[in-house]
Amino acid sequence: MGGDAGPSIVVTALVRSLQRHPEAKFLLHGDEAALNELIRKRKSKFSQRVAIRHAPGRVKMEEKPSTALRRGRDSSMWRSIESVKKGEAEAVVSAGNTGALMAMSMYQLGLIDGITRPAIASVWPNKRGQTVVLDCGANIECDAEQLVDFAVMGEAFARAVLGLPRPRVGLLNVGSEEVKGHDAVKGAAHILRAAKLPMEFCGFIEGNQIGDGTVDVAVTDGFTGNIALKTAEGTAKLIAGYLRSALRRSPLSRLGAVLASGALNALRRKLDPRAAGGGLFLGLNGVVVKSHGSTDALGFAYAIDTAIDMAVGGINKSIVADRAGLRPEAVAL
Amino acid sequence: MGGDAGPSIVVTALVRSLQRHPEAKFLLHGDEAALNELIRKRKSKFSQRVAIRHAPGRVKMEEKPSTALRRGRDSSMWRSIESVKKGEAEAVVSAGNTGALMAMSMYQLGLIDGITRPAIASVWPNKRGQTVVLDCGANIECDAEQLVDFAVMGEAFARAVLGLPRPRVGLLNVGSEEVKGHDAVKGAAHILRAAKLPMEFCGFIEGNQIGDGTVDVAVTDGFTGNIALKTAEGTAKLIAGYLRSALRRSPLSRLGAVLASGALNALRRKLDPRAAGGGLFLGLNGVVVKSHGSTDALGFAYAIDTAIDMAVGGINKSIVADRAGLRPEAVAL
Repeated sequence: MGGDAGPSIVVTALVRSLQRHPEAKFLLHGDEAALNELIRKRKSKFSQRVAIRHAPGRVKMEEKPSTALRRGRDSSMWRSIESVKKGEAEAVVSAGNTGALMAMSMYQLGLIDGITRPAIASVWPNKRGQTVVLDCGANIECDAEQLVDFAVMGEAFARAVLGLPRPRVGLLNVGSEEVKGHDAVKGAAHILRAAKLPMEFCGFIEGNQIGDGTVDVAVTDGFTGNIALKTAEGTAKLIAGYLRSALRRSPLSRLGAVLASGALNALRRKLDPRAAGGGLFLGLNGVVVKSHGSTDALGFAYAIDTAIDMAVGGINKSIVADRAGLRPEAVAL
Repeated sequence: MGGDAGPSIVVTALVRSLQRHPEAKFLLHGDEAALNELIRKRKSKFSQRVAIRHAPGRVKMEEKPSTALRRGRDSSMWRSIESVKKGEAEAVVSAGNTGALMAMSMYQLGLIDGITRPAIASVWPNKRGQTVVLDCGANIECDAEQLVDFAVMGEAFARAVLGLPRPRVGLLNVGSEEVKGHDAVKGAAHILRAAKLPMEFCGFIEGNQIGDGTVDVAVTDGFTGNIALKTAEGTAKLIAGYLRSALRRSPLSRLGAVLASGALNALRRKLDPRAAGGGLFLGLNGVVVKSHGSTDALGFAYAIDTAIDMAVGGINKSIVADRAGLRPEAVAL
């Protein structure tokens, strides 16, 4: 029921996801009458793969996480996370309030044994493929051990979901020299260099190396990660706007844009933020994916695809197994 | 003598700058024989506006700032800063080692009274014009008072150099709500709301709002600022690469690109990182501008233009005057 567009985009997204994952089953939590109305219009084959669970309440987009946690027990958000907790579902996807989704997920699912903080990961396009960036905003301040956990969670995602056998992992810093940065990044680099993990640790990287594809996983604290990625999104939007207005400038450039429209559409698809699959909550006992609040059916469908990939790929088993490669003193809490 | 390309681009840049600023005079510090050779090829009119000061040494690009500070007293970098200290010059421009330039500038020029840390500012294109972003890497960690100083320095730059009478200033954060962020940003917001400064303080902004042009000045710590801006640079480079390869894909798109080449060149100029004028060192008793190490003559000329604008605009007088608007308890060191 969350998200700016309401549940209709969720149902349209399900139709799309069922075509790609004919084995998938869905539990739709929310206003039963509204959801029934949306489902009734679809083919009967579709309705057999979808069950509706009535939830009278909903978490508002502007609601404080603490308020949602206290008063939102009858909400579609709470109930959908609960269905993962009960083992009825393997993953939850929501376009609702991010803070409330994280708070409710933490409360109901809890953290993977040994992990002290969850992280939000985002998959970003680069020159050669994709980079997993985390944390993108779950944690304002992080110590060395937490950054190490993020590195392991990102590496496990890259192995389990992106299918990379030995992901290259870097720590975002203001320079690549060992002496640069604050204590947390220096400490995390020290631990990662000594650990036996299924990754190639590349040391410190700078922000421009995300786009270059130098690494598969870029690790940072949630403050820096959130600002860096939103700055990059803003840059992409700015350039797209510049390009549009430049191509409209003269009859000749308009004609050129028509002839090159195939290429320009390919570019648009490549930069489509919906394709990133949303924010992936890592470190929880369960798979939780947050689709953009302002997403449409296509963006929500991508988020569902990512959630299915994470559940099928066994991301959490990978995190648990890989953390065993950290020396005991390095993971001491 | 610094920069990857050596002094020849500096001399070419001077020719360009003299056309735009016929009143300017230049002191060129470096290897006298090499510089004389470069100057000799130019018109006599040009050589009248340029004096050469021999400096036998040079700071290497990979040299540690502390080493450069200890052993680099005979370098072109040290001597050019010294000429500002002595009052022979009003601004110094270098494409050399950033850390060494900052260390030598701090040592010789010192900080403006009341400022505890210098900042590196960068001018970034946005949808409506330009945004000054600082700190872009001089300080790894910053407290609330330092962020406030950066806000004042950015505002003074926007007034003195960009000609904005009342710049809009925002603090980069992970959300726009007052409760978000760590103590330093919250503390800085508190001080800026109460202060009487010639700016419109817009509170917290998110990374994407830099490109939107919501503010004229975006303030953050040097760790986040450096990573965010390098991530944005990487994104711009990535998109330019995508666009180039998309337009080469088919004969039709190649023809389209030829017809739209005027528009595409306009886009290229708009995104040209050289136009940003380099890294502006703020908070020092003197104007210091750092051009990219890998810059060419055009980029170095833009850096010179910015340095001239800063000196003529009286940026440091503005910083001193505007800081008077902070309440005394807020600027206590």
